[in-house]
Amino acid sequence: MGNSFGQLFRLTTWGESHGGGVGVVVDGCPPRLELSEADIQPDLDRRRPGQSTITTPRHETDAVQILSGTFEGRTLGTPISMWVKNQDYRPEAYSEMAEKFRPSHADYTYHAKYGIRAWPGGGRSSARETIGRVAAGAIAKKLLKERWGVSVLACVVQVQDILAPVDPESFRTEDVEANIVRCPNAEVAARMVARIEEVRSQGNSVGGVILGVARGVPPGWGEPVFDRIEADLAKAMLSLPASKGFEVGSGFGGVLLTGRDHNDAFRNIDGKVRTTTNRSGGVQGGITNGETIYFRTAFKPVATIMREQETVDARYQNTTLTGRGRHDPCVLPRAVPMVEAMTALVLVDHALRHHAQCG
Amino acid sequence: MGNSFGQLFRLTTWGESHGGGVGVVVDGCPPRLELSEADIQPDLDRRRPGQSTITTPRHETDAVQILSGTFEGRTLGTPISMWVKNQDYRPEAYSEMAEKFRPSHADYTYHAKYGIRAWPGGGRSSARETIGRVAAGAIAKKLLKERWGVSVLACVVQVQDILAPVDPESFRTEDVEANIVRCPNAEVAARMVARIEEVRSQGNSVGGVILGVARGVPPGWGEPVFDRIEADLAKAMLSLPASKGFEVGSGFGGVLLTGRDHNDAFRNIDGKVRTTTNRSGGVQGGITNGETIYFRTAFKPVATIMREQETVDARYQNTTLTGRGRHDPCVLPRAVPMVEAMTALVLVDHALRHHAQCG
Amino acid sequence: MGNSFGQLFRLTTWGESHGGGVGVVVDGCPPRLELSEADIQPDLDRRRPGQSTITTPRHETDAVQILSGTFEGRTLGTPISMWVKNQDYRPEAYSEMAEKFRPSHADYTYHAKYGIRAWPGGGRSSARETIGRVAAGAIAKKLLKERWGVSVLACVVQVQDILAPVDPESFRTEDVEANIVRCPNAEVAARMVARIEEVRSQGNSVGGVILGVARGVPPGWGEPVFDRIEADLAKAMLSLPASKGFEVGSGFGGVLLTGRDHNDAFRNIDGKVRTTTNRSGGVQGGITNGETIYFRTAFKPVATIMREQETVDARYQNTTLTGRGRHDPCVLPRAVPMVEAMTALVLVDHALRHHAQCG
Amino acid sequence: MGNSFGQLFRLTTWGESHGGGVGVVVDGCPPRLELSEADIQPDLDRRRPGQSTITTPRHETDAVQILSGTFEGRTLGTPISMWVKNQDYRPEAYSEMAEKFRPSHADYTYHAKYGIRAWPGGGRSSARETIGRVAAGAIAKKLLKERWGVSVLACVVQVQDILAPVDPESFRTEDVEANIVRCPNAEVAARMVARIEEVRSQGNSVGGVILGVARGVPPGWGEPVFDRIEADLAKAMLSLPASKGFEVGSGFGGVLLTGRDHNDAFRNIDGKVRTTTNRSGGVQGGITNGETIYFRTAFKPVATIMREQETVDARYQNTTLTGRGRHDPCVLPRAVPMVEAMTALVLVDHALRHHAQCG
Repeated sequence: MGNSFGQLFRLTTWGESHGGGVGVVVDGCPPRLELSEADIQPDLDRRRPGQSTITTPRHETDAVQILSGTFEGRTLGTPISMWVKNQDYRPEAYSEMAEKFRPSHADYTYHAKYGIRAWPGGGRSSARETIGRVAAGAIAKKLLKERWGVSVLACVVQVQDILAPVDPESFRTEDVEANIVRCPNAEVAARMVARIEEVRSQGNSVGGVILGVARGVPPGWGEPVFDRIEADLAKAMLSLPASKGFEVGSGFGGVLLTGRDHNDAFRNIDGKVRTTTNRSGGVQGGITNGETIYFRTAFKPVATIMREQETVDARYQNTTLTGRGRHDPCVLPRAVPMVEAMTALVLVDHALRHHAQCG
Repeated sequence: MGNSFGQLFRLTTWGESHGGGVGVVVDGCPPRLELSEADIQPDLDRRRPGQSTITTPRHETDAVQILSGTFEGRTLGTPISMWVKNQDYRPEAYSEMAEKFRPSHADYTYHAKYGIRAWPGGGRSSARETIGRVAAGAIAKKLLKERWGVSVLACVVQVQDILAPVDPESFRTEDVEANIVRCPNAEVAARMVARIEEVRSQGNSVGGVILGVARGVPPGWGEPVFDRIEADLAKAMLSLPASKGFEVGSGFGGVLLTGRDHNDAFRNIDGKVRTTTNRSGGVQGGITNGETIYFRTAFKPVATIMREQETVDARYQNTTLTGRGRHDPCVLPRAVPMVEAMTALVLVDHALRHHAQCG
Repeated sequence: MGNSFGQLFRLTTWGESHGGGVGVVVDGCPPRLELSEADIQPDLDRRRPGQSTITTPRHETDAVQILSGTFEGRTLGTPISMWVKNQDYRPEAYSEMAEKFRPSHADYTYHAKYGIRAWPGGGRSSARETIGRVAAGAIAKKLLKERWGVSVLACVVQVQDILAPVDPESFRTEDVEANIVRCPNAEVAARMVARIEEVRSQGNSVGGVILGVARGVPPGWGEPVFDRIEADLAKAMLSLPASKGFEVGSGFGGVLLTGRDHNDAFRNIDGKVRTTTNRSGGVQGGITNGETIYFRTAFKPVATIMREQETVDARYQNTTLTGRGRHDPCVLPRAVPMVEAMTALVLVDHALRHHAQCG
Repeated sequence: MGNSFGQLFRLTTWGESHGGGVGVVVDGCPPRLELSEADIQPDLDRRRPGQSTITTPRHETDAVQILSGTFEGRTLGTPISMWVKNQDYRPEAYSEMAEKFRPSHADYTYHAKYGIRAWPGGGRSSARETIGRVAAGAIAKKLLKERWGVSVLACVVQVQDILAPVDPESFRTEDVEANIVRCPNAEVAARMVARIEEVRSQGNSVGGVILGVARGVPPGWGEPVFDRIEADLAKAMLSLPASKGFEVGSGFGGVLLTGRDHNDAFRNIDGKVRTTTNRSGGVQGGITNGETIYFRTAFKPVATIMREQETVDARYQNTTLTGRGRHDPCVLPRAVPMVEAMTALVLVDHALRHHAQCG
């Protein structure tokens, strides 16, 4: 269970790291949207390993194939099934994983839950699972843009203790994509890259923070009381591999202010209700207020490192394990399209839900 | 929509701040659990306003009534309907709210979404809605304790910039309930109370952070890939009024470490697989590993303050609004039982889901 | 579980025959619909026992109270909670039920499932549960009428072997309500009433068939492939107490025809696509085609009879049981508003779903 | 929407008649079940066209491939993705369908709903969609058998006006599979085959009734009040292409009896609570009582016939259409595995739901 997301724009992902492939079925996409693999592949390319010197050298082509739900280049309103074949299976690279639980990975918990696990490459807990999300998210992003003029984007704003000041209102995708770490501040990005190169050379890894943004969302999306926009975004972000925290608007920092300094004053600006500040992060009472939605997600350092670590084996005996082979020292650049995808999926779903009840 | 939570232990809350009352229907509770109002009222009393000098003086008795789902003191397995009558309706205290949108409240967004709103007391966006959650959560807590030996508790660990060092493994409910701010560290609690008294005297408000904990959860609860335990906890916390952030385990602070320092080593301890540290926060790959689950939730300063603020009225004209009457300078003490309730609801639901598929 | 129905217009019923009452929470109703108890009470009056000489003499007033979700006479878009208090509790009338399982009732199966049951009046399995459905259905009927011009109605077309020829296209509510058996054909109705009086005098009971109809449904409602309109109607009907069968359009009788005689030819009539016959029953491939939806539901004879019957007691020992007290010889007249309610609930839900995806 | 079925054992089907293929994702299957394509292919072979002289001569091999969710021959507890490639695309055989709506098919309603349709082969409304159901159902049947000893089977009991007397308690799969019409009564089966051959020779088609049975279901499965076993079975059956009616136990015929003659007396037989008759069809109050579940589903004559029929074209102009090419005069033999699959899916889902709450 737990492999589906969304109420009206609903995706179900499937697939293990090794085996027939990974994929996703999207149910509820509106009909007559122009759609082909060319709309989806670019985000998969941003997600895949091996795209730069600071990610894992594992080269996956991850070519997506649309198996259903479109006809003559447009969506039918029926389920869209997308599939990416697995390649590059080298079981010998993983054989130690059959016998030992990698620290801070899901090997032990899957074993404890299911009594069986697909140990090659982490099976279902592999980040390959996010291929399905990114593919579905690409459709969601296109729909948001075409139907409601909403832009969803994300960028890296922190790597370990290196912070980049980024304005959620104005940073541009071009600047994000201008460097391999996906931080729109070129100067800070260079320092981030250097840091990642350094930890990679040590066989170590590093985490950081991604800023997610949605611009142009109209007032009124979101549901009280459990399915608040920020609650669904929080769930979406914490469902991403390696994520450990989420904050919207002023977030954890906002607790330092008093109510007087934290409240966002309303003003009529050009006939619209606007706020003069945006500590709310575009959401009030779970419902969008027309301001830019922004939030931050923390990602821990990647658990796989090229160092010897203490662990237990499948018979619960103490042992050690040393990572081998490919090494992804920082998941952040590849997580940017994942954050965008999940954000878009939350927003499209709420757009449809809003129009169903109030449209 | 959006007024239900959970898959197998599913609650639906209803009710506005004013009107016939607030309530909840719980569907999926196992049969034959001993249950009466006496199991539920204590948590409602911890949640209600007017319980101490640092909360709103509004006195609500909030007496809960079980209308269905039990027979001769035990649950039937059928829906448990619980109801708390509204009292103390003083529309004159709120009449200005009919015409003006309170800053950083949900007045404007409800108006934008629905084209109608129950302005007295904030209607559905009132914190009174959480009565239903706390009532349902009390059942969930009891079930977790009796069936699986799991303890759920929470406490205040930060008020504005005052931090209390609290160990998730060992703090005790008695210490939490020993003071009105619900911080188990008596010395820090006194400083927190003083700060809240100070901002109250200024007609201002203040926020902070609550630590939530679950001890004794067995390995194996949680679902890959979207319904991870931490993802559902994040949603649960961000669905609480005034919450702005969530972090599990090492959280945002964990990004400062490298993978080598962050990973939790596995060891066989007394025949069980344990970790020697717990930066994972009791969850790996979305599934519990048997260690204590802990997480932190940030709450912004309460939006209602006794000061003049800029806003717009219902015709979108600029105006000002000054809070009157009751004033709740800090929501944190009352939010502690809310955090416990939502945590217990997430865990019970996952316990049932786990046993359905793997039990 | 299983106490909720619908995806976007979602109701959750609660309550046992005896105890605090019965009720329903409706989540997803569009905002700004005029609504008060006066919209709901008439259908509850049509449903309640004691309304005529051919139903049980038990007099329930069943006065509904709206506890939430409306403000100044209009819906808010938030959950609508409705409640009917239980009255007339005479446990001595039921005490034998505590020890014995009534034949063809749910006493034994609830016992087998839950290991506990609220034996007075059948508890949750009592037809009183349908109060919540009928209340929610009254809102659905009003919404269908006001927003889409759709009329939902039902009538009795068979009592035991007495059949009434009724045209789904043209029978009128006035004729249905003109007699106590709710059959629009006055002559046949009189014979039905006589039959019911006869079986009542024998302490026996009788079943029959209800015709359900929806007129004015536009083409395009319904979802392939599992949530077809007719599939959801079938589930809705078979969820009613005592129902044993469902057929849409030509139904079981249609199997006697060949494809050539069964197919509905399309013709352009006044610029619209119409069918010259309607054996499809208004649905093709699970989606409405603009023709009148009609279907028939079979209800078995009421299980409670005033005769001695063989059964077992709660210790599984053979015994006999004789019905006492109130006796409802035919559920059909009271089931008519239930059929209307469930039909309206299915259609409103599909209307909202259609508009969410394709609107 | 509407392409998923089940709560805990949940399938999502995808695919059009033409295009990349058809498939299904099953989420919630318990782990460690032995599973390979060999468990699934036999039911697909029973479903596919071209298997005998009385079905369409279209030869589909329909070879299933498991893409995920198993490892070393056992289920992982993760989503099981299954895929059958489409073959044999001859667009010229269908070109007239691009311009004209086939009578009593879903061409017009899909057009009305979505404003676009995949006309080759009926697109999503093709019976090829049921491949996914039958594949998922094969897993459900295996699980029911191995874990709970439950047998699910079905057979043809009526073709047009030819009826076969079949005892739900005792008919055998071997006898069902002994002839091409799948009726366990060999003598009646021969007459059914002759009738189907006759209508085929006329380019016509014929419908009938399938009996579905589940033996060995323990007492206690099923949920009050909406998700009754019989309600979910009714939905399952009415979701099958060409189905028009459903009845459980005594069904429509039961209305001819009085309560005294219809009630099933309870008796203690060998220490178990049993009924001496089974007019309830194994279900009371929505919950199984341990007796055999049996029900009947009506299928209309296939809409595609080799005769000229009146219809309209895509511009809503009157025209005629003559079926060409392949012709399937009777869907019943191929629908038998579909009925079994949907029955098994309903039962497995309820088994898991029962054990989650009450197990």
